[in-house]
Amino acid sequence: MKRPLTPIRFLHRAESQYGTKTGVIDGDESWTYSEYARRCRRQANLLESYRLPAGSVVAFLSFNTHQLLEGYYGVILAGHVFLPLNIRLSPADFTFILNDASVKVLFFHQAFRSVIEQIRPQLETVERFISLDSGETADWMEDRLYDQLLEEQSPQLQVDAEAVDEDSVAEMFYTSGTTSTPKGVLLTHRNLYLHALEVGLMLNGTDADVQLHTIPLFHVNGWGTPQLLTCLGGTHVMLPKFDPLGVLEQIQRNRVTLMSLVPTMATALIHHPERGNFDLSSLRRVTIGGSASNPKLIGEAEEAFGCLVVSGYGLTETSPVLTASFVKSHLKTDDADHSREIQAMTGYPIPGADLQIVDDDGRPLPWDGVSEGEIVVRGDMVMKGYYNRPEDNEKAFRGGWFHTGDRATINPDGYVLIVDRQKDIIISGGENISSIELEKVVLGHPAVLECAVIPIPDDQWGEVPKALVVCKPGRSCEEEELLDHCRTNLAGFKMPKSVDFFAQELPKGGTGKILKRKLRERYWAKEKKRVH
Amino acid sequence: MKRPLTPIRFLHRAESQYGTKTGVIDGDESWTYSEYARRCRRQANLLESYRLPAGSVVAFLSFNTHQLLEGYYGVILAGHVFLPLNIRLSPADFTFILNDASVKVLFFHQAFRSVIEQIRPQLETVERFISLDSGETADWMEDRLYDQLLEEQSPQLQVDAEAVDEDSVAEMFYTSGTTSTPKGVLLTHRNLYLHALEVGLMLNGTDADVQLHTIPLFHVNGWGTPQLLTCLGGTHVMLPKFDPLGVLEQIQRNRVTLMSLVPTMATALIHHPERGNFDLSSLRRVTIGGSASNPKLIGEAEEAFGCLVVSGYGLTETSPVLTASFVKSHLKTDDADHSREIQAMTGYPIPGADLQIVDDDGRPLPWDGVSEGEIVVRGDMVMKGYYNRPEDNEKAFRGGWFHTGDRATINPDGYVLIVDRQKDIIISGGENISSIELEKVVLGHPAVLECAVIPIPDDQWGEVPKALVVCKPGRSCEEEELLDHCRTNLAGFKMPKSVDFFAQELPKGGTGKILKRKLRERYWAKEKKRVH
Repeated sequence: MKRPLTPIRFLHRAESQYGTKTGVIDGDESWTYSEYARRCRRQANLLESYRLPAGSVVAFLSFNTHQLLEGYYGVILAGHVFLPLNIRLSPADFTFILNDASVKVLFFHQAFRSVIEQIRPQLETVERFISLDSGETADWMEDRLYDQLLEEQSPQLQVDAEAVDEDSVAEMFYTSGTTSTPKGVLLTHRNLYLHALEVGLMLNGTDADVQLHTIPLFHVNGWGTPQLLTCLGGTHVMLPKFDPLGVLEQIQRNRVTLMSLVPTMATALIHHPERGNFDLSSLRRVTIGGSASNPKLIGEAEEAFGCLVVSGYGLTETSPVLTASFVKSHLKTDDADHSREIQAMTGYPIPGADLQIVDDDGRPLPWDGVSEGEIVVRGDMVMKGYYNRPEDNEKAFRGGWFHTGDRATINPDGYVLIVDRQKDIIISGGENISSIELEKVVLGHPAVLECAVIPIPDDQWGEVPKALVVCKPGRSCEEEELLDHCRTNLAGFKMPKSVDFFAQELPKGGTGKILKRKLRERYWAKEKKRVH
Repeated sequence: MKRPLTPIRFLHRAESQYGTKTGVIDGDESWTYSEYARRCRRQANLLESYRLPAGSVVAFLSFNTHQLLEGYYGVILAGHVFLPLNIRLSPADFTFILNDASVKVLFFHQAFRSVIEQIRPQLETVERFISLDSGETADWMEDRLYDQLLEEQSPQLQVDAEAVDEDSVAEMFYTSGTTSTPKGVLLTHRNLYLHALEVGLMLNGTDADVQLHTIPLFHVNGWGTPQLLTCLGGTHVMLPKFDPLGVLEQIQRNRVTLMSLVPTMATALIHHPERGNFDLSSLRRVTIGGSASNPKLIGEAEEAFGCLVVSGYGLTETSPVLTASFVKSHLKTDDADHSREIQAMTGYPIPGADLQIVDDDGRPLPWDGVSEGEIVVRGDMVMKGYYNRPEDNEKAFRGGWFHTGDRATINPDGYVLIVDRQKDIIISGGENISSIELEKVVLGHPAVLECAVIPIPDDQWGEVPKALVVCKPGRSCEEEELLDHCRTNLAGFKMPKSVDFFAQELPKGGTGKILKRKLRERYWAKEKKRVH
């Protein structure tokens, strides 16, 4: 017997087996899995009522709230593709993505109303705008708000989930690539179903788990939790926006067992003056991902949270989890420092992911903990491809492996450690920033002749972008002036934090390409390699 | 990206991530996962050297030893179908199965040499006989023994695992049906891959698990452990044959964490006089399956083993696990009796299995814990079908659901409880016995006019077959004579334990069918329904 592999089945299981259990908590509100599933079906029926072509893209510009979680199932129940937008992007990014993906329906929180009004004239395909929360409607929006629209729909399903093609696209995320514009990552029903099972097997989830969504769901598929936790019948605790005090409050209030953090979040929580006032004893594991960790941070986090802390690694393109840094049973000792060394590694692959570190010719490197190469992966969780980007796909999937662009070593015990990034990406506080996008903006300033944007170390964000600039002959420019220029053209989190001016041209390789790695060296000299 | 779902990937993962760890223990011998994988590949290369057509069936008539576990991967690595035989079957059964499945190669332990010599003239397709252990060879066998043959082969793989068709058959098991001859159950690579992930998610396995194979692997796919435990990098401990003292010794010696038992095994271990002399503290969970459990047994087992004891339910046709009886987190209380009531239920479905209790018209029954109907299931782990049995398949899969033939209730919390069996099957000590097969044998005695074989309660085996007989007019027959007649025609474990003679014809329904349920009533009157 062969049934389609689709996350829709996770919702059915949660409703069937955990219908009376609290499935979703958002502030003072909560829903049982039965109530949640009914809301998802109402959302699906609402979309059905619009008579969109099958496989239309439905986007959410939403805080990390229960409505966003409803989109994860409502949209795919209706046979459409779910696209959650990173709310921190710029108006220009939103415009690009909504047009690139041919989005038909946009759900949004009123906080983004003005930005939508601003970009609306440039939107080529959006037919419906639906406000997720209360506020005045306008003539360009649906004339009723989300809850009212849901109320009018039947909680019964009018579509046949068994008819799903498991290889069809369920979700779409935009990610910064090495190019200046974001690329649409296509995840199939099968990708998401298998990723959930496979990451769940590694992470040992149970129905007793209460996950605080510290990482917004619009980031890299919320680390897979919208699927896995629902399958298990655990409880989702929404966190509209990350703030350390709010996290501590939610952990105590909802007896949270699991959360994922990027290092900057972990640091903020560890050093929060009020941490000691909260009961965090329900936590059973914290995962740190998004950028390199270190044993000191793992140790501090384990002491602060009183539970196991491991690292995890993944990409939007891989649903996302590829590795976790649990200590393998046969490597366990009583030495906590030894364990934390391992737990601070990038980790070893979850079931379903085959991972290799390869040299420039695609040959696997020895497991010596020293040889550096690119991480390539084959796996059930690897995306179908980038939307409408045949050249990028050809490059990314060359030789039958997905090329992550991350450089790493692998040690004799099979643990990967990321040491560098091949792609021109800066990861600041867990957000991907394309160097090339920033360079394009800086080069748009009339005084600039050459520009390279590189990551430099930063205590708070791990790394931040810095612009290295050569001015045109006879022209000059102040740092503040250049940053102002960037501010009007970039999302806030992408802003270069500083500018260094060079009198002579930037160093270049044989093909005329700027040697960024060489430029970076001087800024990273004092840092340990792993904390770059 | 789409990769074939095949258990071969579990072997690759174990070898890659746990190559230096002990993967298999069998008596005084043990193998790391790297050594085990090399043996599997040598076995695959041996089969390759025979140049069999792709998808040939390779059978094992083997005790529950490391060689049998090697067959789980060696055979499918070679692109063939793995068929482990239940060693307790009769020579006639072996002949039927080997011919029905067109088996090309038979691996066997020397203990079965004489039975093979006996049936060999009737075998139509077997080309090669390979002795798994030491002993004299004969002209009809390969002239070298298993270990020598493996030694001659390369440990490198000469087949491309990536080219596997996930919907092709990987394993075949014969199961007693309602018919008098066993039926071949076809499990695909995809069935086995998904079953492992899904049961693993429910059972919370980790690489620290050490599973004692108390249930032979040739039974219902060894409860899925050949796949799941390998995927996780846990350790297999083989047990050539079940004996209580041997189990206690193995638990202590290898720090066993998991085992599965049928109730008769559990009872034998609980009451074993030497149990207290062994250190069983490594156990973390015991699963009782194979037939109905009860809260008293669960309680006694939890006290005897000092760990959680849950029930599990599955069929050969479902890879096999469908349910387990963990207490859902929101139903947990401090009351151990309450928990054990739940743990003695048949359980709730694992992820990937949709289960319904339906009436005779296929309509789902209310979750009231009272209404009785048949368990039907749709799931990733449900077999492709019975081999060469179009009519049986049509019946078993009618309406798009697999019909288990088990009758059950389902309570408001979603827990299934099996109350009866629709199929004419007796489950004695975990072994399926077809009433119809026994009736056919009994009716073969010249004095017998009518016969019904029914299960009756038995302290040791749960239930045992009893023959109810009416003699032909003017003929008579002694119990011993009839049992002798059965002994020459049946596998030992299938033997009726007693015979009752009836002077008048057996009660029949409108269509002339013997009303077995009515006949059973008098023998089960004193038993609680659940312990039938």
